[in-house]
Amino acid sequence: MRNIKLTIEYKGTSFNGWQIQPDPQKTVQGEITKALKKLSGHEVKLIGAGRTDSGVHAFGQVANYKTHSTLALPKIQNALNAMLPRDIAIINTKEVAKDFHSQYSAKSKTYRYSLYLRKVPSPFYDQTTLHFPQKLNIACMRKETRHLIGKKDFRSFMATDPSLGERGKTKNTLRTIQKLNIRKTGPFLWIEIEADGFLYKMVRNIVGTLIEVGTGKRPPEITAHILLQKDRNFAGETAKAHGLTLLEVTY
Amino acid sequence: MRNIKLTIEYKGTSFNGWQIQPDPQKTVQGEITKALKKLSGHEVKLIGAGRTDSGVHAFGQVANYKTHSTLALPKIQNALNAMLPRDIAIINTKEVAKDFHSQYSAKSKTYRYSLYLRKVPSPFYDQTTLHFPQKLNIACMRKETRHLIGKKDFRSFMATDPSLGERGKTKNTLRTIQKLNIRKTGPFLWIEIEADGFLYKMVRNIVGTLIEVGTGKRPPEITAHILLQKDRNFAGETAKAHGLTLLEVTY
Repeated sequence: MRNIKLTIEYKGTSFNGWQIQPDPQKTVQGEITKALKKLSGHEVKLIGAGRTDSGVHAFGQVANYKTHSTLALPKIQNALNAMLPRDIAIINTKEVAKDFHSQYSAKSKTYRYSLYLRKVPSPFYDQTTLHFPQKLNIACMRKETRHLIGKKDFRSFMATDPSLGERGKTKNTLRTIQKLNIRKTGPFLWIEIEADGFLYKMVRNIVGTLIEVGTGKRPPEITAHILLQKDRNFAGETAKAHGLTLLEVTY
Repeated sequence: MRNIKLTIEYKGTSFNGWQIQPDPQKTVQGEITKALKKLSGHEVKLIGAGRTDSGVHAFGQVANYKTHSTLALPKIQNALNAMLPRDIAIINTKEVAKDFHSQYSAKSKTYRYSLYLRKVPSPFYDQTTLHFPQKLNIACMRKETRHLIGKKDFRSFMATDPSLGERGKTKNTLRTIQKLNIRKTGPFLWIEIEADGFLYKMVRNIVGTLIEVGTGKRPPEITAHILLQKDRNFAGETAKAHGLTLLEVTY
């Protein structure tokens, strides 16, 4: 059995998220699984590094699957890209150790949330950035990030995942944010977060809170207070999905 | 009569070019003219700095129109953006002198042609860049540009415009290219050309020729030879429209 690791780029706009769903819902995992089945001639279980919600994009999602097929890696990549819709691209293929698991072996993930700051919405980036014409105090937002970096209990920034039942509820809500950078490049504001793992909607809840600090709706230092509450009701609004991109997963 | 100058950004993918056409052809000039008529309550003649072909984009197209309306500029801009489809944005409005003419007053225009060099096509940039996975000798392409810079007869790089009759044929084919830069940024190769004016399909014919030099299909120094022929048959293939963007018009 070979274990094949795929690195995947996708524009999430027309997908109902990563996770496979009953037809006719179009998902990224669903499309790739279908293509892999055609290619290998058998059912394939594709394991993703993490689910992304409907509308969320990826530059470097990772997934792996096991197969008896002896097809060379470049042939696998070319065949998949030929079968997949244009908004999904397999940008790398690699044979990995048998025990490699896209989700459990991951050391860290990096997400980027993109705001488009110009007053007028962009004809080019309206599906990949959040249009945000209001004034933002970026210095204030940057100061706030020091409360979020490090090993913390991020329960206040976790949404309840409706797809998990009572048993599936996340008990351990400790996560370590290694990096949190806010960068302005041209009309874009990028909020990039690297962590050893993310709770459900954690990035979008952190971003929503930072935006509220930036507009002055929330006072400085509020994030420290929110973290201590360990209650989702204290954090800001969930930022919209279409501004979010999974940049990279490291192993 | 006020003379209003608009700066316009558009994603050209779903338009049949800039120039107004009989319905039901959707064009950028057509959409803006329709919105201006609604806003002003009278017929409006919108003069563009230059026509862009079907599929070509703009970050800074310029157009002007005359009106009796006394509406403040920010109101004009907001009203137009509210009426226009999402792939057109009015990014600036300005009141200009009565004799300002978007086309005749223009001093220079800058176009960018974008190639996407990665082997695998991009889910994000497939409508705004030309996917070019083949090897390109960029140093060779750069060397070639010195033959093109300056005041030259660019007849060899001009296509015949089917919309112009016998009388409309361009007689003066002298143009001055002030800048021609080739820049690689990440997976993109940008070919940027600034000139006092462009002949029909001149940018795309120059880019097509430079690409043929980059792949080795044409030998070094060929552009000097092509220019001397003053015959379109000697230049390279016309590069596809969707990689082209009108960046800026200066006055």
